[in-house]
Formats: sequence, C-alpha cells, structure tokens
Amino acid sequence: MTKIFKYDKEFSLECGEVLPSLTVAYHTYGELNADKSNVAWVCHALTANSDVADWWPGTVEAGRFLDPAEYFVVCANILGSCYGTTGPTEINPATGEPWYGDFPKVTIRDMVRAHQLLAQYLGIEHVKLLIGSSVGGFQCLEWSVMQPDFAENCVFIATGAQAYPWGVAFNESQRMAIESDPTFGDATAEAGLNGMATARSIALLSYRGGKAYDKTQADPAEPYDSPFMHRVLSYQRYQGEKLRRRFNAYSYYRLLQAYDSHNLGRGRESVQAALQSIKARVLLVSITSDLLFPPSDHQVMVDNIKGSEYHVIDSDFGHDGFLVESDKLNGIIQSFIKEK
Amino acid sequence: MTKIFKYDKEFSLECGEVLPSLTVAYHTYGELNADKSNVAWVCHALTANSDVADWWPGTVEAGRFLDPAEYFVVCANILGSCYGTTGPTEINPATGEPWYGDFPKVTIRDMVRAHQLLAQYLGIEHVKLLIGSSVGGFQCLEWSVMQPDFAENCVFIATGAQAYPWGVAFNESQRMAIESDPTFGDATAEAGLNGMATARSIALLSYRGGKAYDKTQADPAEPYDSPFMHRVLSYQRYQGEKLRRRFNAYSYYRLLQAYDSHNLGRGRESVQAALQSIKARVLLVSITSDLLFPPSDHQVMVDNIKGSEYHVIDSDFGHDGFLVESDKLNGIIQSFIKEK
Repeated sequence: MTKIFKYDKEFSLECGEVLPSLTVAYHTYGELNADKSNVAWVCHALTANSDVADWWPGTVEAGRFLDPAEYFVVCANILGSCYGTTGPTEINPATGEPWYGDFPKVTIRDMVRAHQLLAQYLGIEHVKLLIGSSVGGFQCLEWSVMQPDFAENCVFIATGAQAYPWGVAFNESQRMAIESDPTFGDATAEAGLNGMATARSIALLSYRGGKAYDKTQADPAEPYDSPFMHRVLSYQRYQGEKLRRRFNAYSYYRLLQAYDSHNLGRGRESVQAALQSIKARVLLVSITSDLLFPPSDHQVMVDNIKGSEYHVIDSDFGHDGFLVESDKLNGIIQSFIKEK
Repeated sequence: MTKIFKYDKEFSLECGEVLPSLTVAYHTYGELNADKSNVAWVCHALTANSDVADWWPGTVEAGRFLDPAEYFVVCANILGSCYGTTGPTEINPATGEPWYGDFPKVTIRDMVRAHQLLAQYLGIEHVKLLIGSSVGGFQCLEWSVMQPDFAENCVFIATGAQAYPWGVAFNESQRMAIESDPTFGDATAEAGLNGMATARSIALLSYRGGKAYDKTQADPAEPYDSPFMHRVLSYQRYQGEKLRRRFNAYSYYRLLQAYDSHNLGRGRESVQAALQSIKARVLLVSITSDLLFPPSDHQVMVDNIKGSEYHVIDSDFGHDGFLVESDKLNGIIQSFIKEK
C-alpha cells in the first residue's frame, strides 16, 4: 500500500525554483527492528514507482536479497514522477490546478534531498543497504556522496557516475518526439501522450540491443504475406502503448531531463574525487550487453570507489538485464552482504 | 552532373502496384573502356544520392579504389528517393500532381530491378566491381543473387543478409515519429518534415554508438551554467535539421520500409541458399563497433558465400565507420582487387 509523507515547508530546487511544499509517496515491506539496523533502501529507475515488489520481481521475497523477513525495505517515488510524489500531475498550490508543463526541472540531487527528508521523517539515519539500478543507481551514487555515512553497503547496478553523451542523445530524441505531439503544452493529463509513446519506443532501443531483439523479436518461421511485415513492429508500438496507459508526458519529459542532470562531478572537484569520497562498502554490477552503461563506463567507479567489488553479468538482455537477470543478481548481492 | 534515364514502360513493384514509367537519376565518373570491362557500380545507402564523389569522400579520387582514371564509376539514385529517381516527390502521371503519400511501397529488389534497366540502357552486362555499404550493401547482395553473372568482384560493407529486428525497431520508432507530425499526410513537399527531423535524430543513435558519441560529443571542460545542458543536445537537433533541409518525409518513410523488406531468403529456399548462389568474388567488411550490423551479423555471409574474404575494421565510429574510415577501406579494397 502506498504511504504518503507530507512536508509542509518550502523545498528549493537546484534550478533555483522553490516548491511550496512536498509530498513523497513510498512503500515499506517488513518491520523496522528495534535498533533500526535492518533498513534496505531501494531507489527506483525512470518510470517505476515505489512498489518495488511489483516492478522488480524476484527481489522482495523470502530468501532473496530484499527478503522482508530480514529487511525493512523502503522505496519512495521520485520527485517529478506521477505516482504520488510531487510532480507535474500534482496540484500547484499557487494556482489550485495541476502543474503539468509548469512543473520546474528537477535534478537527481533534488530527488535525493526529497528522499532524505522522508528518511528523517521515518527516523532512519543509517541504512544497511542502499541499492539502485540505472537512474536508481544515479540516486544511490549521489546519496552516497552527499551523505557518506548514510549507507553501510551500496549496490550500484547498470549505472554511471554521470550521464554520458549517447544516453543524453537518446533522451533528446525522445524529447523531440514528445514536442512534436501538437497536444504537448495543453494543460491536460492526456497532453503529449502520443509523443510519449513514440519516445518510449525509442527508449526501448537503448534498453535492449541487437542480441536481445534477435532473441525475443525474431520473425516466426512461417513468412508473412507482406515483405514489409515484422513481428517487432507491433512490439515497438505495444511498448509505447503500455507507457501511455500508465504515465504522464510532462513527468516523462522532466525525468529525462533529470537523467541528463546527473554528474557526480558537477560543482565538485571532479567525478573521481566525488567517487573517492564514498565511505560505504560498494558492490558494482554491470551487464555485458548494456549499451547505455557498458562495463567500460563502470571502470571509473571501480577505479575510484575505495575497496569496491565489481561483477559483470553475462547477459544478452542489455540494460534491461537488471530487471531480467534477478537470479544472477540475487546470488551476487547476497554473497556481497554476507561476505562482510 | 546528374544524368537522367527515362524508361517509358510500366514497372511492376513487388507490392503488386505498377508504376506507369520510371526515371532513374545517375552519375558517372571516368570513361567506359572499349571492351566495357572497367565498370565500378556503387549502390548508395538510405538518404544518399547518385553523386558518390560528394557523399563518399576519399573514394572517387586518383589512387583510391574508385579512381576515375581506372574505372567507369556508375552510381544511381534509388527508387523511392527524392534525388531524381521516381519517388514520392515526382509527378504521378495519373494525377499530374506529385505522388507524396500515395507513392507505393518499394523493396530492395524493386530498387535493383530499376538499376538493372539502367545498366541495360548503358550497355553494361558485367561490372568489374559492385560495391555498397549498409542499404547499399542490401542492393549489392540482392543484385548478386538476382543476377549472379553481373559482378566479377563484390564488396559488401557494414551490411546484412536481411534486416534484423533491432534495425527494424529503429525504423518503426522513426516512422512513429513521422506519423505524429500532424502535417504528415498533407499533399505538400513540406509535410512531415518536423517528424522526419526527429526520425533522423533517432537514426543517428544507431549509426554511432556510445564510444563515437563519447569521442565527438563529450561536454567541454568548462562546465555549463545549467545542470541540464550538454553539447550533444544541439548535435541531435542539428542532424535532424540537416536532413530536413535536403530530404522529403514521404521518401524517407518509404525508404525505411524498403530497408525492412530486405531479406535474401524471402521467397527463396533460405538466406543461406541465396548466399551460396552468389558467384562473384566477394569481400566482406564489418566494423567492430557497428551496432546495426555488428561483425556477428556478417558471419552468415562469411560462412555461406563461397571463397569470400572477410575484414573487420577496428573503429569506434560504429555503422558510420563506412563513411569515416575510407583510408582503411581503401587499403583493404585495393588489395582485394589486386590480389585476384
């Protein structure tokens, strides 16, 4: 069940704008123990929500690395999203209407600061485990730099110390697709949804590469009547449709921009120095076929996070491997935690 | 200078529709020798034109593999394009107006058959060299299968025996972007151009992967004022703009579909059997970082084209490597031709 934390003070964003108040939607699983030493905090990726048990199967289950019998698992919806935390679909107190396109730009650091307020409210000063993949990993990395004593153990999966040009280019093409939807700009919940569906079909291309598509979207043996027909055509449209039914285009647009904002070195000495300031025990996991955050992009983290442990999962599922390969992840993460 | 070949008979397309006549725009460089044994025929890729000396620098030059002192170089604009050959921007004789959205779907095989008519018209029965990259390679492969005695030597670069799911998925996302432009469907030359610009920015993501973007689009050392700013943002928009100024959205849409139609095995025993029927001496070239046609996709051609020679160019420029790495290509192709 989604829980709601209301913060009634002003919340300043990195872009300079100020939100008059803040709402953070979150889920918890399991029980917080007496000395509050069993917290596992999950940061979610771009379009997910706070219900980690739902979007990350094989994790919040008995015997798995987020076993609720062992951990008090917390996951909060990110700032700018549309699943209960303050974002474009929430009411702008200044107008009494939803923010939509007027919602300001947010950064990964803004997201983390919002969740730090939730942790404070929950009385959580330290967590045993801080874990995230992709944009969830961005938040975990920032959090570990902003508050080096917060996490005892960190797991950063399929992620990077900064947004890299090819990923940002994917985001920009997606924004172009959304902008070319003539309804984008309207003050309605449906604005830009066609453009967002196209954007999602673009994003999919970065989440899964050629090998994953060969594996899952190859044409059937029986040839189609038309030379122009392929199984993958409906897959691309279907992925767009699926997001259209569950997301908001203004949120999606802002979250893509938040992705772009990610850079551990921004306003600090350097990416390397920021990574060197992390005090937690760190496990890094990359996926061989990940095009967005290939193993080579993990090297700067491996080299600069003191004592970090590094695993590469051999998988054809690309960036999506973090969702698909939960068995492999489970083994790696459980050994890392126990090994301590 | 662009030359024009007019074919005044009906031309049947694979889709079942019939074009009342055909125009093929082409370029030639150098002189055809007396026994017509010095022809080098170049098949161009998706959005190029017949002026190969312009779009493929370092090739139609003294001492290079398309040296016009040695070869009579021919390159013809493909069917469905907008550079002089019959396509959406040409006049539909039935209406006296441009075809635009009414232009029928064409396949790679249709393109080859149109160019076979041009070869016939030029009195060319055999070529010394048939060469093409990407969608140009699709045509060369089809031509070698459809007319096994046509080419003495073939060079297939960064291409495939069929369209693979990830490439088709890229094309579908591009078509979605074009379709969401509200002007697409209008009977004007400007219809769908915004959508096409977005489509082009999507295509770029497949032409160059992460390493190429890291190399050419990394942010400058001096940080931007805004956390959301990146050099690559303007690159994506600029690539879209560049195509907008020189191409037509109906042509682009149809050429993406022609790409999808490519399958050497379609209506034949199998892809392998089609490849085995090729009689020319064949050089295959792939590029290490090519995401659209990675070296692994070349293997079926290496394995099934009798006596083929195979080179992998080590380059970070991805699929675009076929344009960027002309020095490396030149060495490989010249040795292949001389070695005979």
